[in-house]
Amino acid sequence: MKKSLGARTLVFPTPAWLVGSYDGEGRPNAMAVAWGGVCCSHPPCIAVSLRKATHSYASIMERKAFTVSVPSEAYVREVDYFGIASGRDVDKFAATGLTPVRSTLVDAPYVGEFPMVVECRLLQTVEIGLHTQFIGEILDVKAEESVCDTQGAVDIGKVLPVVYAPDVRSYHGIGRTLGRAFSVGKGVGERGGKP
Amino acid sequence: MKKSLGARTLVFPTPAWLVGSYDGEGRPNAMAVAWGGVCCSHPPCIAVSLRKATHSYASIMERKAFTVSVPSEAYVREVDYFGIASGRDVDKFAATGLTPVRSTLVDAPYVGEFPMVVECRLLQTVEIGLHTQFIGEILDVKAEESVCDTQGAVDIGKVLPVVYAPDVRSYHGIGRTLGRAFSVGKGVGERGGKP
Repeated sequence: MKKSLGARTLVFPTPAWLVGSYDGEGRPNAMAVAWGGVCCSHPPCIAVSLRKATHSYASIMERKAFTVSVPSEAYVREVDYFGIASGRDVDKFAATGLTPVRSTLVDAPYVGEFPMVVECRLLQTVEIGLHTQFIGEILDVKAEESVCDTQGAVDIGKVLPVVYAPDVRSYHGIGRTLGRAFSVGKGVGERGGKP
Repeated sequence: MKKSLGARTLVFPTPAWLVGSYDGEGRPNAMAVAWGGVCCSHPPCIAVSLRKATHSYASIMERKAFTVSVPSEAYVREVDYFGIASGRDVDKFAATGLTPVRSTLVDAPYVGEFPMVVECRLLQTVEIGLHTQFIGEILDVKAEESVCDTQGAVDIGKVLPVVYAPDVRSYHGIGRTLGRAFSVGKGVGERGGKP
Protein backbone atom coordinates (compact mmCIF):
# COMPACT_ATOMS: atom_id res chain seq x y z
CA MET A 1 0.00 0.00 0.00
CA LYS A 2 1.48 3.34 -1.07
CA LYS A 3 1.09 6.44 1.01
CA SER A 4 1.21 10.02 -0.20
CA LEU A 5 4.25 12.00 0.96
CA GLY A 6 3.41 15.29 -0.74
CA ALA A 7 5.02 17.46 -3.40
CA ARG A 8 8.73 17.28 -2.62
CA THR A 9 12.08 16.51 -4.21
CA LEU A 10 12.28 12.96 -2.91
CA VAL A 11 13.63 10.46 -5.42
CA PHE A 12 16.57 8.01 -5.48
CA PRO A 13 19.31 7.98 -6.59
CA THR A 14 20.70 11.51 -7.05
CA PRO A 15 24.40 12.28 -7.53
CA ALA A 16 26.87 14.07 -5.25
CA TRP A 17 29.07 16.13 -7.54
CA LEU A 18 31.22 19.24 -7.20
CA VAL A 19 30.58 21.95 -9.80
CA GLY A 20 33.70 24.03 -10.39
CA SER A 21 33.96 27.60 -11.67
CA TYR A 22 36.13 30.73 -11.47
CA ASP A 23 34.60 33.78 -9.83
CA GLY A 24 34.86 37.41 -10.94
CA GLU A 25 38.28 37.74 -9.30
CA GLY A 26 39.52 34.55 -10.95
CA ARG A 27 39.41 32.56 -7.73
CA PRO A 28 38.66 28.86 -8.12
CA ASN A 29 35.50 27.73 -6.39
CA ALA A 30 33.25 24.69 -6.33
CA MET A 31 29.93 23.74 -4.81
CA ALA A 32 28.21 20.46 -4.09
CA VAL A 33 25.19 19.64 -6.23
CA ALA A 34 22.66 16.83 -6.21
CA TRP A 35 20.21 18.46 -8.62
CA GLY A 36 21.55 17.34 -11.96
CA GLY A 37 22.06 14.62 -14.51
CA VAL A 38 22.90 13.81 -18.09
CA CYS A 39 20.34 15.46 -20.39
CA CYS A 40 21.39 14.70 -23.97
CA SER A 41 23.51 12.17 -25.87
CA HIS A 42 24.30 14.27 -28.98
CA PRO A 43 25.72 16.73 -28.24
CA PRO A 44 26.72 15.08 -24.95
CA CYS A 45 25.28 17.34 -22.27
CA ILE A 46 24.93 17.41 -18.51
CA ALA A 47 22.61 19.67 -16.51
CA VAL A 48 23.12 21.04 -13.01
CA SER A 49 20.69 23.31 -11.15
CA LEU A 50 21.85 26.16 -8.94
CA ARG A 51 20.11 28.83 -6.91
CA LYS A 52 20.75 32.41 -7.99
CA ALA A 53 21.93 33.15 -4.44
CA THR A 54 25.00 30.92 -4.79
CA HIS A 55 28.43 32.33 -5.49
CA SER A 56 28.80 29.84 -8.35
CA TYR A 57 25.73 31.13 -10.17
CA ALA A 58 27.30 34.45 -11.18
CA SER A 59 30.62 32.77 -11.93
CA ILE A 60 29.15 30.32 -14.42
CA MET A 61 26.98 33.01 -16.00
CA GLU A 62 30.09 35.13 -16.56
CA ARG A 63 32.58 32.49 -17.64
CA LYS A 64 30.08 30.37 -19.60
CA ALA A 65 31.82 27.27 -18.36
CA PHE A 66 31.81 24.78 -15.51
CA THR A 67 33.22 21.41 -14.58
CA VAL A 68 31.62 18.46 -12.80
CA SER A 69 34.07 16.62 -10.56
CA VAL A 70 33.01 13.13 -9.49
CA PRO A 71 34.29 12.30 -6.00
CA SER A 72 35.18 8.89 -4.71
CA GLU A 73 33.60 7.97 -1.39
CA ALA A 74 36.86 8.67 0.46
CA TYR A 75 36.08 12.37 -0.11
CA VAL A 76 32.53 12.42 1.25
CA ARG A 77 33.42 14.83 4.08
CA GLU A 78 35.03 17.31 1.68
CA VAL A 79 32.02 17.05 -0.64
CA ASP A 80 29.72 17.84 2.24
CA TYR A 81 31.90 20.80 3.24
CA PHE A 82 31.70 22.18 -0.32
CA GLY A 83 27.92 22.10 0.12
CA ILE A 84 27.96 23.87 3.48
CA ALA A 85 30.49 26.69 2.98
CA SER A 86 30.21 29.51 0.44
CA GLY A 87 32.98 30.64 -1.89
CA ARG A 88 31.97 34.19 -1.00
CA ASP A 89 33.34 33.70 2.52
CA VAL A 90 36.11 31.16 2.20
CA ASP A 91 38.52 29.49 -0.21
CA LYS A 92 37.06 25.99 -0.05
CA PHE A 93 39.96 24.45 -1.94
CA ALA A 94 42.46 25.87 0.59
CA ALA A 95 40.28 24.83 3.51
CA THR A 96 40.05 21.22 2.35
CA GLY A 97 43.52 20.94 0.88
CA LEU A 98 42.06 19.87 -2.46
CA THR A 99 43.73 21.09 -5.64
CA PRO A 100 41.97 23.31 -8.19
CA VAL A 101 43.26 22.26 -11.61
CA ARG A 102 42.71 24.69 -14.49
CA SER A 103 40.91 23.04 -17.39
CA THR A 104 42.69 23.52 -20.69
CA LEU A 105 39.38 23.25 -22.56
CA VAL A 106 37.00 25.50 -20.63
CA ASP A 107 37.39 28.49 -18.31
CA ALA A 108 36.80 26.54 -15.08
CA PRO A 109 38.74 24.51 -12.51
CA TYR A 110 38.20 20.91 -11.43
CA VAL A 111 39.22 18.91 -8.38
CA GLY A 112 42.58 17.30 -9.04
CA GLU A 113 42.22 14.55 -6.44
CA PHE A 114 38.86 13.23 -7.69
CA PRO A 115 38.94 10.24 -10.05
CA MET A 116 36.74 11.67 -12.82
CA VAL A 117 35.85 15.07 -14.21
CA VAL A 118 33.57 16.38 -16.93
CA GLU A 119 34.48 19.67 -18.62
CA CYS A 120 31.59 21.74 -19.97
CA ARG A 121 30.89 24.89 -21.89
CA LEU A 122 27.60 26.51 -20.97
CA LEU A 123 25.11 25.76 -23.73
CA GLN A 124 21.82 26.98 -22.30
CA THR A 125 20.21 28.17 -19.06
CA VAL A 126 16.65 27.30 -18.11
CA GLU A 127 14.73 29.31 -15.52
CA ILE A 128 12.53 26.96 -13.52
CA GLY A 129 11.85 28.53 -10.13
CA LEU A 130 14.16 28.71 -7.15
CA HIS A 131 16.75 26.95 -9.28
CA THR A 132 18.23 27.82 -12.65
CA GLN A 133 19.33 24.90 -14.73
CA PHE A 134 22.70 25.13 -16.47
CA ILE A 135 23.00 22.84 -19.46
CA GLY A 136 26.62 22.21 -20.31
CA GLU A 137 28.01 20.60 -23.41
CA ILE A 138 30.56 18.00 -22.37
CA LEU A 139 33.78 18.79 -24.23
CA ASP A 140 35.82 16.09 -22.50
CA VAL A 141 35.71 13.49 -19.75
CA LYS A 142 38.95 12.85 -17.90
CA ALA A 143 39.65 9.97 -15.54
CA GLU A 144 42.58 8.74 -13.51
CA GLU A 145 44.34 5.83 -15.15
CA SER A 146 43.98 3.98 -11.84
CA VAL A 147 40.16 3.81 -12.25
CA CYS A 148 40.28 2.47 -15.81
CA ASP A 149 40.22 -1.24 -16.52
CA THR A 150 42.59 -3.05 -18.86
CA GLN A 151 40.39 -2.15 -21.86
CA GLY A 152 40.53 1.54 -20.97
CA ALA A 153 36.91 1.73 -19.79
CA VAL A 154 36.17 3.50 -16.52
CA ASP A 155 35.37 1.04 -13.71
CA ILE A 156 32.62 2.32 -11.40
CA GLY A 157 33.91 -0.10 -8.77
CA LYS A 158 37.20 1.80 -8.77
CA VAL A 159 35.71 5.30 -9.04
CA LEU A 160 33.40 4.55 -6.07
CA PRO A 161 31.11 7.54 -6.69
CA VAL A 162 28.81 8.93 -4.03
CA VAL A 163 25.01 8.64 -4.15
CA TYR A 164 22.96 11.27 -2.36
CA ALA A 165 19.56 10.53 -0.85
CA PRO A 166 17.66 13.83 -0.85
CA ASP A 167 15.03 14.62 1.76
CA VAL A 168 16.55 12.08 4.15
CA ARG A 169 19.92 13.78 3.49
CA SER A 170 22.42 10.96 3.53
CA TYR A 171 25.37 9.84 1.41
CA HIS A 172 25.81 6.28 0.19
CA GLY A 173 28.35 4.23 -1.68
CA ILE A 174 27.81 1.99 -4.69
CA GLY A 175 26.84 -1.60 -4.00
CA ARG A 176 27.02 -4.84 -5.89
CA THR A 177 26.77 -5.11 -9.66
CA LEU A 178 23.24 -6.13 -10.66
CA GLY A 179 23.80 -6.87 -14.33
CA ARG A 180 24.63 -5.61 -17.80
CA ALA A 181 22.31 -3.07 -19.40
CA PHE A 182 20.61 -3.94 -22.70
CA SER A 183 21.30 -7.51 -21.73
CA VAL A 184 19.77 -8.76 -18.44
CA GLY A 185 16.29 -7.78 -19.63
CA LYS A 186 16.47 -9.74 -22.87
CA GLY A 187 13.94 -12.52 -22.97
CA VAL A 188 11.82 -11.10 -20.15
CA GLY A 189 8.84 -10.60 -22.43
CA GLU A 190 9.29 -13.90 -24.24
CA ARG A 191 8.11 -15.93 -21.32
CA GLY A 192 4.89 -13.89 -21.39
CA GLY A 193 4.83 -13.01 -17.73
CA LYS A 194 6.76 -12.07 -14.70
CA PRO A 195 10.20 -13.67 -14.83
CA MET B 1 47.46 11.16 -13.89
CA LYS B 2 44.21 11.81 -15.72
CA LYS B 3 43.70 10.73 -19.28
CA SER B 4 41.30 12.25 -21.78
CA LEU B 5 38.39 10.01 -22.74
CA GLY B 6 36.69 12.38 -25.16
CA ALA B 7 33.32 14.12 -25.37
CA ARG B 8 30.86 11.52 -24.12
CA THR B 9 28.08 10.99 -21.59
CA LEU B 10 30.25 9.26 -19.04
CA VAL B 11 29.56 10.28 -15.45
CA PHE B 12 28.57 8.44 -12.26
CA PRO B 13 26.03 7.94 -10.78
CA THR B 14 22.98 8.17 -13.03
CA PRO B 15 19.56 6.77 -12.11
CA ALA B 16 17.60 3.86 -13.55
CA TRP B 17 13.97 4.96 -13.59
CA LEU B 18 10.85 4.05 -15.53
CA VAL B 19 8.94 6.98 -17.04
CA GLY B 20 5.24 6.19 -17.38
CA SER B 21 2.70 7.68 -19.80
CA TYR B 22 -0.50 6.88 -21.70
CA ASP B 23 -0.27 6.77 -25.46
CA GLY B 24 -2.76 8.13 -28.00
CA GLU B 25 -4.95 5.03 -27.62
CA GLY B 26 -4.88 5.29 -23.83
CA ARG B 27 -2.55 2.33 -23.44
CA PRO B 28 -0.20 2.47 -20.46
CA ASN B 29 3.46 2.49 -21.37
CA ALA B 30 6.78 3.11 -19.68
CA MET B 31 10.41 3.40 -20.72
CA ALA B 32 13.69 3.17 -18.88
CA VAL B 33 15.62 6.43 -18.51
CA ALA B 34 19.02 7.26 -17.11
CA TRP B 35 19.17 10.82 -18.47
CA GLY B 36 17.44 12.78 -15.73
CA GLY B 37 17.49 14.20 -12.25
CA VAL B 38 15.93 16.68 -9.88
CA CYS B 39 16.17 20.19 -11.34
CA CYS B 40 14.41 22.55 -8.92
CA SER B 41 13.36 22.66 -5.25
CA HIS B 42 10.52 25.19 -5.52
CA PRO B 43 8.43 24.21 -7.32
CA PRO B 44 9.74 20.68 -6.84
CA CYS B 45 10.71 19.51 -10.33
CA ILE B 46 12.35 16.55 -11.98
CA ALA B 47 13.72 16.39 -15.52
CA VAL B 48 13.93 13.41 -17.85
CA SER B 49 15.32 13.44 -21.39
CA LEU B 50 13.79 11.43 -24.20
CA ARG B 51 14.52 11.04 -27.88
CA LYS B 52 11.77 12.17 -30.26
CA ALA B 53 11.82 8.69 -31.79
CA THR B 54 10.48 7.06 -28.62
CA HIS B 55 6.84 6.08 -28.25
CA SER B 56 6.76 7.91 -24.90
CA TYR B 57 7.78 11.24 -26.45
CA ALA B 58 4.48 11.77 -28.26
CA SER B 59 2.51 10.44 -25.29
CA ILE B 60 3.98 12.92 -22.83
CA MET B 61 3.65 15.78 -25.31
CA GLU B 62 -0.05 14.97 -25.71
CA ARG B 63 -1.00 14.20 -22.13
CA LYS B 64 1.28 16.82 -20.54
CA ALA B 65 2.01 14.38 -17.73
CA PHE B 66 4.37 11.60 -16.74
CA THR B 67 5.41 9.56 -13.73
CA VAL B 68 8.83 8.44 -12.56
CA SER B 69 8.73 5.00 -10.95
CA VAL B 70 11.76 4.10 -8.83
CA PRO B 71 12.53 0.37 -9.00
CA SER B 72 14.08 -1.70 -6.28
CA GLU B 73 17.02 -3.82 -7.39
CA ALA B 74 14.86 -6.96 -7.48
CA TYR B 75 13.32 -5.50 -10.66
CA VAL B 76 16.53 -4.79 -12.56
CA ARG B 77 15.68 -7.26 -15.34
CA GLU B 78 12.26 -5.70 -15.88
CA VAL B 79 13.83 -2.21 -15.91
CA ASP B 80 16.26 -3.31 -18.58
CA TYR B 81 13.44 -4.83 -20.61
CA PHE B 82 11.54 -1.52 -20.48
CA GLY B 83 14.66 0.04 -22.01
CA ILE B 84 14.97 -2.53 -24.77
CA ALA B 85 11.37 -2.99 -26.00
CA SER B 86 9.16 -0.25 -27.49
CA GLY B 87 5.56 0.44 -26.50
CA ARG B 88 4.85 0.76 -30.22
CA ASP B 89 5.40 -2.98 -30.65
CA VAL B 90 4.46 -4.54 -27.35
CA ASP B 91 2.56 -4.02 -24.09
CA LYS B 92 5.55 -3.94 -21.77
CA PHE B 93 3.40 -4.09 -18.65
CA ALA B 94 1.70 -7.27 -19.87
CA ALA B 95 5.02 -8.77 -20.96
CA THR B 96 6.64 -8.24 -17.56
CA GLY B 97 3.56 -8.86 -15.45
CA LEU B 98 3.98 -5.45 -13.81
CA THR B 99 0.85 -3.44 -12.96
CA PRO B 100 0.12 -0.04 -14.51
CA VAL B 101 -1.64 2.01 -11.83
CA ARG B 102 -3.55 5.09 -12.97
CA SER B 103 -2.41 8.21 -11.14
CA THR B 104 -5.28 10.14 -9.60
CA LEU B 105 -3.30 13.38 -9.89
CA VAL B 106 -1.90 13.33 -13.42
CA ASP B 107 -2.86 11.65 -16.67
CA ALA B 108 -0.20 8.93 -16.51
CA PRO B 109 0.32 5.44 -15.07
CA TYR B 110 3.01 4.26 -12.68
CA VAL B 111 4.43 0.85 -11.77
CA GLY B 112 2.41 -0.58 -8.90
CA GLU B 113 5.10 -3.00 -7.72
CA PHE B 114 7.88 -0.42 -7.40
CA PRO B 115 8.48 1.06 -3.93
CA MET B 116 8.39 4.75 -4.90
CA VAL B 117 6.79 6.91 -7.55
CA VAL B 118 6.85 10.59 -8.47
CA GLU B 119 3.80 12.05 -10.25
CA CYS B 120 4.44 15.00 -12.55
CA ARG B 121 2.62 17.46 -14.72
CA LEU B 122 4.66 18.65 -17.68
CA LEU B 123 5.92 22.14 -16.93
CA GLN B 124 8.37 22.81 -19.74
CA THR B 125 10.19 21.12 -22.61
CA VAL B 126 13.75 22.02 -23.59
CA GLU B 127 15.16 21.13 -26.99
CA ILE B 128 18.82 20.23 -26.62
CA GLY B 129 19.82 17.98 -29.51
CA LEU B 130 19.07 14.29 -29.94
CA HIS B 131 17.18 14.48 -26.66
CA THR B 132 14.32 16.69 -25.55
CA GLN B 133 14.21 17.42 -21.85
CA PHE B 134 10.85 17.17 -20.11
CA ILE B 135 10.67 19.18 -16.91
CA GLY B 136 7.88 17.92 -14.70
CA GLU B 137 6.49 19.59 -11.61
CA ILE B 138 6.27 16.98 -8.85
CA LEU B 139 2.69 16.99 -7.58
CA ASP B 140 3.17 14.06 -5.22
CA VAL B 141 5.63 11.39 -4.14
CA LYS B 142 4.17 8.06 -3.09
CA ALA B 143 6.00 5.26 -1.31
CA GLU B 144 5.15 1.84 0.05
CA GLU B 145 4.70 1.87 3.78
CA SER B 146 7.17 -1.03 3.91
CA VAL B 147 10.05 1.26 2.78
CA CYS B 148 9.32 3.98 5.33
CA ASP B 149 11.03 4.04 8.72
CA THR B 150 9.26 4.49 12.05
CA GLN B 151 9.37 8.30 11.62
CA GLY B 152 7.66 8.04 8.24
CA ALA B 153 10.79 8.96 6.24
CA VAL B 154 11.66 6.88 3.20
CA ASP B 155 14.61 4.55 3.88
CA ILE B 156 16.93 4.22 0.87
CA GLY B 157 18.18 0.95 2.38
CA LYS B 158 14.67 -0.45 2.01
CA VAL B 159 13.91 1.11 -1.40
CA LEU B 160 17.19 -0.31 -2.78
CA PRO B 161 17.16 1.86 -5.92
CA VAL B 162 19.22 1.04 -8.98
CA VAL B 163 22.24 3.04 -10.13
CA TYR B 164 23.12 3.02 -13.82
CA ALA B 165 26.68 3.39 -15.04
CA PRO B 166 26.45 4.89 -18.53
CA ASP B 167 29.03 4.18 -21.20
CA VAL B 168 30.08 0.99 -19.42
CA ARG B 169 26.36 0.08 -19.34
CA SER B 170 25.92 -1.70 -16.03
CA TYR B 171 23.44 -1.62 -13.16
CA HIS B 172 24.47 -1.38 -9.52
CA GLY B 173 22.88 -1.44 -6.11
CA ILE B 174 23.32 1.01 -3.27
CA GLY B 175 26.20 0.37 -0.88
CA ARG B 176 27.03 1.37 2.65
CA THR B 177 25.93 4.63 4.24
CA LEU B 178 28.79 7.13 4.16
CA GLY B 179 27.36 9.83 6.42
CA ARG B 180 24.75 12.51 7.00
CA ALA B 181 24.63 15.46 4.63
CA PHE B 182 25.15 18.98 5.99
CA SER B 183 26.83 17.23 8.88
CA VAL B 184 29.89 15.07 8.08
CA GLY B 185 31.60 18.04 6.41
CA LYS B 186 31.27 20.36 9.37
CA GLY B 187 34.61 21.32 10.80
CA VAL B 188 36.57 20.26 7.71
CA GLY B 189 37.74 23.79 7.05
CA GLU B 190 38.45 24.57 10.69
CA ARG B 191 41.51 22.43 10.80
CA GLY B 192 42.90 24.46 7.91
CA GLY B 193 43.90 21.57 5.73
CA LYS B 194 43.07 18.17 4.45
CA PRO B 195 41.16 16.26 7.12
